[in-house]
Amino acid sequence: MTRERLYLYDTTLRDGQQTQGVQFSVAEKRQIAQALDAMGVDYIEGGWPGANPTDSDFFESRPQTRAAFTAFGMTKRAGRSAENDDVLAAVLNAGTPAVCLVGKAHDFHVTTALGITLEENLESIGASIAHCVASGREALFDAEHFFDGYKANPAYALDCLRAAAEAGARWIVLCDTNGGTLPAEVGRITGEVIAAGVPGDRLGIHCHDDTGNAVAASLAAVDAGARQIQGTLNGLGERCGNANLTTLIPTLLLKDPYRSRYDIGVGEGALRGLTKASRLLDDILNRVPLRSAPYVGASAFAHKAGLHASAILKDPSTYEHIDPAAVGNERVIPMSNQAGQSNLRARLAAAGIEVGPKDPALARILDAVKTREDQGYSYDGAQASFELLARRELGILPRFFEVKRYRVTVERRKNKYDRMITLSEAVVVVKIGGEKMLSVSESMDETGSDRGPVNALSKALAKDLGPYQACIDDLRLVDFKVRITQGGTEAVTRVIIDSEDSAGRRWSTVGVSPNIVDASFEALLDAITWKLVRDGAAAS
Amino acid sequence: MTRERLYLYDTTLRDGQQTQGVQFSVAEKRQIAQALDAMGVDYIEGGWPGANPTDSDFFESRPQTRAAFTAFGMTKRAGRSAENDDVLAAVLNAGTPAVCLVGKAHDFHVTTALGITLEENLESIGASIAHCVASGREALFDAEHFFDGYKANPAYALDCLRAAAEAGARWIVLCDTNGGTLPAEVGRITGEVIAAGVPGDRLGIHCHDDTGNAVAASLAAVDAGARQIQGTLNGLGERCGNANLTTLIPTLLLKDPYRSRYDIGVGEGALRGLTKASRLLDDILNRVPLRSAPYVGASAFAHKAGLHASAILKDPSTYEHIDPAAVGNERVIPMSNQAGQSNLRARLAAAGIEVGPKDPALARILDAVKTREDQGYSYDGAQASFELLARRELGILPRFFEVKRYRVTVERRKNKYDRMITLSEAVVVVKIGGEKMLSVSESMDETGSDRGPVNALSKALAKDLGPYQACIDDLRLVDFKVRITQGGTEAVTRVIIDSEDSAGRRWSTVGVSPNIVDASFEALLDAITWKLVRDGAAAS
Repeated sequence: MTRERLYLYDTTLRDGQQTQGVQFSVAEKRQIAQALDAMGVDYIEGGWPGANPTDSDFFESRPQTRAAFTAFGMTKRAGRSAENDDVLAAVLNAGTPAVCLVGKAHDFHVTTALGITLEENLESIGASIAHCVASGREALFDAEHFFDGYKANPAYALDCLRAAAEAGARWIVLCDTNGGTLPAEVGRITGEVIAAGVPGDRLGIHCHDDTGNAVAASLAAVDAGARQIQGTLNGLGERCGNANLTTLIPTLLLKDPYRSRYDIGVGEGALRGLTKASRLLDDILNRVPLRSAPYVGASAFAHKAGLHASAILKDPSTYEHIDPAAVGNERVIPMSNQAGQSNLRARLAAAGIEVGPKDPALARILDAVKTREDQGYSYDGAQASFELLARRELGILPRFFEVKRYRVTVERRKNKYDRMITLSEAVVVVKIGGEKMLSVSESMDETGSDRGPVNALSKALAKDLGPYQACIDDLRLVDFKVRITQGGTEAVTRVIIDSEDSAGRRWSTVGVSPNIVDASFEALLDAITWKLVRDGAAAS
Repeated sequence: MTRERLYLYDTTLRDGQQTQGVQFSVAEKRQIAQALDAMGVDYIEGGWPGANPTDSDFFESRPQTRAAFTAFGMTKRAGRSAENDDVLAAVLNAGTPAVCLVGKAHDFHVTTALGITLEENLESIGASIAHCVASGREALFDAEHFFDGYKANPAYALDCLRAAAEAGARWIVLCDTNGGTLPAEVGRITGEVIAAGVPGDRLGIHCHDDTGNAVAASLAAVDAGARQIQGTLNGLGERCGNANLTTLIPTLLLKDPYRSRYDIGVGEGALRGLTKASRLLDDILNRVPLRSAPYVGASAFAHKAGLHASAILKDPSTYEHIDPAAVGNERVIPMSNQAGQSNLRARLAAAGIEVGPKDPALARILDAVKTREDQGYSYDGAQASFELLARRELGILPRFFEVKRYRVTVERRKNKYDRMITLSEAVVVVKIGGEKMLSVSESMDETGSDRGPVNALSKALAKDLGPYQACIDDLRLVDFKVRITQGGTEAVTRVIIDSEDSAGRRWSTVGVSPNIVDASFEALLDAITWKLVRDGAAAS
C-alpha cells in the first residue's frame, strides 16, 4: 500500500487560548510555538491578529518556524468587499504564509447569529478565500458547525465547502464546533462529503471533546478520508477542549492502521520528547499535569495491581500497550497495600536497589509499608519516601544530620500602619557530626508578604546544613498537597511534597501527622534526605 | 425499532481503586456505592473479597442496593478443583448476588504469566464459572487481554469465551486490559465474536483510556452488538483509567442512535444528579475536579470566546450540544451579563435573602465574588462563606466580635522521657462590645497527643466568646480540606471547613491565604459567624 501524508494543524495558541483560565503572554506563545515546531507539526496557528493586543504583538515578533505559521480570522462581513474588510485586512497584514478563515456552514447560524442571507454567506466565503489566495497565501477554510449544519441542511453545508474549494482553499476543515457529534457520525458524514466531490486530501477535521470523543472522532474522519487533523497540545481549548494532539501523535506513529499507512511530520526522535513537551505546557500554565493523561501522564505506565506488577517483571508487554520510553515517559510500580513482593522488588530495582527474591528484608519492608499505611501514609505518589523507608530497613541509609528540635510561630496582628498582617517564623536546631547548628528564618516573599509556617520551616531547615548545603541549594519545592485522612482512629493530615532540582529531577515525599506543620516537616526532611542519597553525599 | 436494554457495570470500587494514589476506606466505599445505586447503574463491583482487609470489611458491611452487588475475583488456579480454591472461596463467601471472575484469554499470558497449559486455563475458566453458577450466583467472566489475545490467536481467545459461556456465565466481558486497542478494531472484533456464536446480549465491554479512546471504543462495541458496558465514575482506574461512565451515561441517554435504541437503568432524574455525583467522588478523594471533563466539568459549558457568549444569549443551542441542566451542570458566561445576575439571585434566594432583579447590590456582590475568586477563593463548596460575603455587601451582617490578634506556636522537641513530641499552643485576643478577652489553648486530645495548630487555634477561639459562647458550644468541625491553588500570581492555600451543630445543620466555609494557619483561621471565623447569623444572635 502506498503511504500517504497526513498533516497536523496545531491550534494551541488560538483555540487552546479559549480554555477557561488560560491567557498566554507573547513570550509564552513564542516558547510554545518553538516546542511545537521541534515536535514537527505542519501548521502552527498563532492567534487572531487584530483581535487582541497580545495576538497582534505575537505576530509581529513571531519565531521563524519550519511549520507553516498561520493567522486565524473570519470571512469578510456581508455588504463589503474582501479588500475593504478591516478585520480581514488585519489578519492578512500579519504576513503569514498560511491564513485560516472561519465561516458559517450551518444555515441556522447564518440567519440567527449573523443575520444575513444564505447567499450572502456563500459570497463571503468565496470572496474571502479568493482574496487570501490572490495575496499569495495558502488558504484554509474552517467550516464552523459543519456537522450540525450538514444534519440540518446538507445541501447548504456542502455549498459552503464548495464555495471555499472553488475559491482555491488548500484545506477545507470540517469543524464540530459544539463538540456533540459522535465518532461514527463524523466518519459517515466525512465520507459523504468526499462522495459529494470534495476530495479527502483537501479535508481537515476539527473536533472538540464535549462527549470525550475528540480523539476518536478525528481518527474516524481520517479513516473516512480526511488528511488534516486540527488539535491542541494537552487537549487545551474552549469548554472541554480540542482534540488532543499529545494523544493523537503517538497513536498515529505507533499504532496500526495509521503506522503502516501514513507519514506525519513527527519522527520517532521528536516523539521521545512528547512527555517533556506536554509538561512544558503545564509548567507555562502553572497547571498540575494530569496523571492519567494517555501516553504522557505520570500514571500512564503505573502498575498498581499486584498481579500486573509481577507479570510486568516477566515481560513488560504483558501490561503495557507501548514502550513508555517511546514517548519519553517511564514505568512506575507504586506501592500500595495491594502490592506483593514482586511489585516491591521491581520498585526497589527502579530505585537502583537490587534485592534477591528470597531476601527476608522484603517482608520487613512490606510490613513497614503496611504499618505506615495504616497510620495514613501513602507511598503511591511518594516514591522517594518509599525508597528512604526501604533503605532504612536494608541498613543502607547514611546518617546525614539530625534535627534536634524546631519551633514555628504564626502571628496575626496589626502592623504599625494599623493593617492586619501575618508573620511566620521558624527556628531549627540541627546536629551534623558533633556540631549543633541553629537557623532561624521568617517567611517572606519578594513583596514582603508572609508565605506561612511551612515556608518558614523549609527556609530555616535549608538555610545551613553545613557540608550538605551545596547539594541542596538547587532544591525547589514545586507542589504541596494536603489531604485529611484516617490513620488509626483519628483523622490525620497527609502532606505530599514534590521537589525538583536543577538537573530536572523531580521526586515526591510524604509526611503524616495530626499536626499539619509536623507532617509538612517530615515530608521536607525526606525531600532533602533523598536528594543527599541521590547525589551520593557522605554520611556525617 | 424495538428498544433494547443496555446494562451498566460499575467498577469504581475495584478497578477504580487501582488509580495511583487512591485508597478507599470502608466508609468511603459505602458512600460511593450508595451514590452509584441512586444513579441507577445495574451492577456495582465492590472489590475483591479476601485480597485485602478493606475489601473484606466492606463486603461484610455492604449497603443494601437495588443494583446487583458484585464480588470480583479470579478463576481458580490450575491443579485444584474450584471447590478447593481458597481464593475463589473467599470471593464466594462474600455472599453477593453476582460474581465476576477474571481469567486469561490470551495464549501468551497463559503460558508466560500463569505458566500453565492452554488446556488447563480453559478448564479453570469453565470449572470456576460453573462453580459460581452452581452456588446460585449470576456469573460474569472478564476475559482479560481479550483483544490482544484475539489478534494473536483468535481460535484460542474464542475458546476461552466459549468455556465461560458453556459453563453458564450470564456475561462474557471483552476486556482491553492494556488499553491499546483502537475503537474501530474493538468494533470489528466484537462483531466477529458475535459472528462466531457468542450472542451480543451476553457480551460486555471493558475498556481503558490508554489511547484516549475508552469511551469511543465502548460505544463501538455497543454498535457491534455488545450489551453491557463496564466503566467507572470520573474514569478512575489503573494507569489512564477505565471507560468513563460519567461521560458515557449522558451520551447514551441524550444522543442518537443510543437514545432511540436503548434503555439503560439511569433515568432523566438521576441524570440531573450526575454532576453532583462526579463532584462527590472528587470530594471523597480530595481531588480538584477536572474543569474540562465532558458534561460535568466546571468549564464544560463555559463560553469564553466573545462571539460564542453573545450568540449564546440569542439561543443557547448555538454553542451548546446539550442543555447543561440535563446533567446538573451550569452554563458559565462572563459574570457581568444578565444571566450571571439571575444565577446570583437564585443563590441568594437559596440562602433566604431576597434581592430585586434591578438591585445595584447584585453587581457589587458579583464584583466581590470575582475579586475573591481571582485571589483563590471558591464559593462552589462554601455556601456559608458566600452568604456572609453577600450579607456584608448588602449591609445585613451584624457585627458580633472582632479578633484583635492571635499567635500560634508549634514546637517539636524531646520531652523529659527523651521522646520526640510536638506541642501546639494558641493565644487569641478577641474584642466583644468594648471588652477585650484573652484565651489560650494547647492542642491535646484525650490521649495527650498534639492535634496541631489549627486545632489549638480553633479551641482558643471558641473558648470564651462571652455572650455568644452558648450559641457556639455545640459547633463541631467535621471536615477540613486543604488545596493548594493559584491566587493572582502566587500559589495560595485554600481551606474549606465543614461544620455541624447539635440540630444536625451542616455548613461549609472557606479561607484563603499563602499561610495555611491563617487560611484555616479565616474559615473558622466564618464558620462561627454563620452559626451566630443563623441562630439570630444580636450584634454586640
